[in-house]
Amino acid sequence: MSNIRDIAKLAQVSVATVSRVLNNHPYVKEEKRKAVWHAVQQLDYQQNINAVHLSKGKTFVIGVVLPYINHPYFSRLLEGIADAAEANGYKLMVIQTNYQVDKELEALDMLRLKQVDGVIFTSRSSPWNILKEYRAYGPVVVCENKMDNQISAIYIDHYRAFQRGMELLIQKGHRKIGYCIGRRKGSNSQKRHEAYRDQLAEIGEPVTEKWIFEQCLHMEDGVRVLREWRDMKEAPTALVVTNDLVAAGIILEAEKLGVSIPESLAVIGFDDQPLAKALRITTIRLPLPRIGKEAFQQAIQDLQIIHKALPFELVERKTV
Amino acid sequence: MSNIRDIAKLAQVSVATVSRVLNNHPYVKEEKRKAVWHAVQQLDYQQNINAVHLSKGKTFVIGVVLPYINHPYFSRLLEGIADAAEANGYKLMVIQTNYQVDKELEALDMLRLKQVDGVIFTSRSSPWNILKEYRAYGPVVVCENKMDNQISAIYIDHYRAFQRGMELLIQKGHRKIGYCIGRRKGSNSQKRHEAYRDQLAEIGEPVTEKWIFEQCLHMEDGVRVLREWRDMKEAPTALVVTNDLVAAGIILEAEKLGVSIPESLAVIGFDDQPLAKALRITTIRLPLPRIGKEAFQQAIQDLQIIHKALPFELVERKTV
Repeated sequence: MSNIRDIAKLAQVSVATVSRVLNNHPYVKEEKRKAVWHAVQQLDYQQNINAVHLSKGKTFVIGVVLPYINHPYFSRLLEGIADAAEANGYKLMVIQTNYQVDKELEALDMLRLKQVDGVIFTSRSSPWNILKEYRAYGPVVVCENKMDNQISAIYIDHYRAFQRGMELLIQKGHRKIGYCIGRRKGSNSQKRHEAYRDQLAEIGEPVTEKWIFEQCLHMEDGVRVLREWRDMKEAPTALVVTNDLVAAGIILEAEKLGVSIPESLAVIGFDDQPLAKALRITTIRLPLPRIGKEAFQQAIQDLQIIHKALPFELVERKTV
Repeated sequence: MSNIRDIAKLAQVSVATVSRVLNNHPYVKEEKRKAVWHAVQQLDYQQNINAVHLSKGKTFVIGVVLPYINHPYFSRLLEGIADAAEANGYKLMVIQTNYQVDKELEALDMLRLKQVDGVIFTSRSSPWNILKEYRAYGPVVVCENKMDNQISAIYIDHYRAFQRGMELLIQKGHRKIGYCIGRRKGSNSQKRHEAYRDQLAEIGEPVTEKWIFEQCLHMEDGVRVLREWRDMKEAPTALVVTNDLVAAGIILEAEKLGVSIPESLAVIGFDDQPLAKALRITTIRLPLPRIGKEAFQQAIQDLQIIHKALPFELVERKTV
C-alpha cells in the first residue's frame, strides 16, 4: 500500500500509527484512529493505486479457472495461487467451471478484453487450440504436462507419479491392481491411465475395466468404492487412489466393515493432505501449493515460455 | 450463453451440434468441430455479452473477502457462493486477506470504482463504520450477526449454536469445559465467548482462561491442543471445538496416546464436514454452503436490507 505517508501527514499522526490503525491494532487512541480513517477517506488512496495500474496497462488481476472450488486438490492449488497473489498485490478472478467449456471461454475472453493480466487453467475441458489462439492476448498457464512452445506449463509428471505408486504395489507382491480417478478424459488422467496400462503390461497383467473406479472426488466416493469392491466376484488386492480424501473414505469404511488394510486391500493415496497423515495413509505427496505459486509467477510475467515439472515424493505409512 | 443460433448459422451446423462442441462431447466430426470454433472466434460473442453488461451498468462480478482460501469453513462458504455465481452467470473476484485491513479496503474500493457489483465479507478485521461508508456504492453483505439497517447479514447465530454445544456437555454431567477457537477478536468469536461465559455462569463455574485454546484452524492444531491438555495439572473434561478439522486432530491424537474419547475427554465439533461423519464426531452442523448462496443472492440484488439467521443442527455421534 502506497501513500501511507500522505495519510499520516493529513491525519497528523506518525506512519507507525497509520499502520497500527490499518491493521486494527488494539492500543491506539480512538481520536487518532478516527483521524486516520478520515484521512483514508479523504485521500481516496486506492484510486491512486488504480491510476498507477492503468498507466502501466495492467489490471493486477489474474484469472483462475478451476472445475470445483471446494475440492482439496484444487483448493490447495488455489491456496498457492492466492498466497502468491496476496504477496504480489494482485487480486484473483476465480471461475468455477464444473468443466463447462463456455465458462472456460469466459475466462479467456477476459484476457482478450484486458480485464485480467493472465489466466491460469488448473484443469480444463476446452480444446488445446483454443487456449493457443487466446495466447496472443496475454499469458495462459496450464497445470498439466503439455509441451507446446506457446504456453507455459507448471505441473506434476502424473505418469511418473502414478508409475511410482504402481511400482510400490508390485514390489509388495500385488498383481491385481485397480485405480480410482475423478474423470477419465483430462490430460492428467490420460497420463495416469497410460502409466497404469504400461505397468500392468510389465508384469503381464491385462487392464480390467471394472477395476477402474470413476467419479472419485470425495470421501463418500471412497465409501462407495469399498462397498463395490467387497461385492466383486474377482476383486483387486490393491488400489491406486488418485486423491487422499477418497483413500480416507475407503479406509474408514473398511474399518467399519472389518476389512483389514493393507492385508485384504492395499491402498495408496495422492496429495498428502493432512488427513493422509492423520490416518497414516501411504501416499504420493504432490507439491500443489508450490505448483499454484509458480503458475502465478508465470501468469504475471510470461516472458519466456517454460515447461516445469515439480517433484513428487512417496510417503510410506501403513496402508500398503 | 447467448448467440448459439448465430454460431450455428455461421458454422452451418445445427444448434445441437454447437452445444455438443462447446461442451466437448466426443461424437462430433472434426470438420464440424472446427467450423464451430471458427464461428465462435469470428463472432466474438463474449464481447457482445460484455456489451450487454455495460449497457446495464453491471459488471456481473461479485467481490468475496475471505481471510484464508484453503480452510474448510471458508471453502464451504465459498463453495456456496461459487455455485450461485456459476448458476447466475457471475464471476467472483476473490481476495484472500489474512485479516489484513488494507486488503479488505481494496475490496471495498473495487465497489466504489464499479469493478464489482457487490462485496461479500465472509469475515473481517475492518471497523464496521468503514463498511457502512462504502455501502453507498453498492451492496455489502456480511456473514455475521450484526443488526444494522444499512448492511445485510446472512449468518449463523453463533451464540445459540455454541450454547447448544455447551448444553449438551452440561447435560452429560460436564462442569469443567474448555473451548478451541481460531481467533478471539472477530464478532462471531465474541458471540461464542459470551455463550461460553453465560453457560458456565449458569452452572456456577468460572471462566478458566488457560482452557481457551486460540489459533485453532487445522488438524495439527488439534494435535497440539490434545498434548497441551494431557500436560495440564487441572484439565477440562470436555471441549467445544469450533471446527471439525481441529476436533479430528484432537481425536486422532487421543487415539494415538491412548486417551479414551469421550470417557476421558468429550469433544464436540462444528460444521459437520465429511471428516466429522467419517470419524463419528458429535458436531453442530452449520449450513455454510447455504449461507454462501444466500449471501450471493443478496449481493447481486440488495433491494431490501435483510438480517437472516440460518438454522444449525446438533448431530450426536460418538465423541460426547
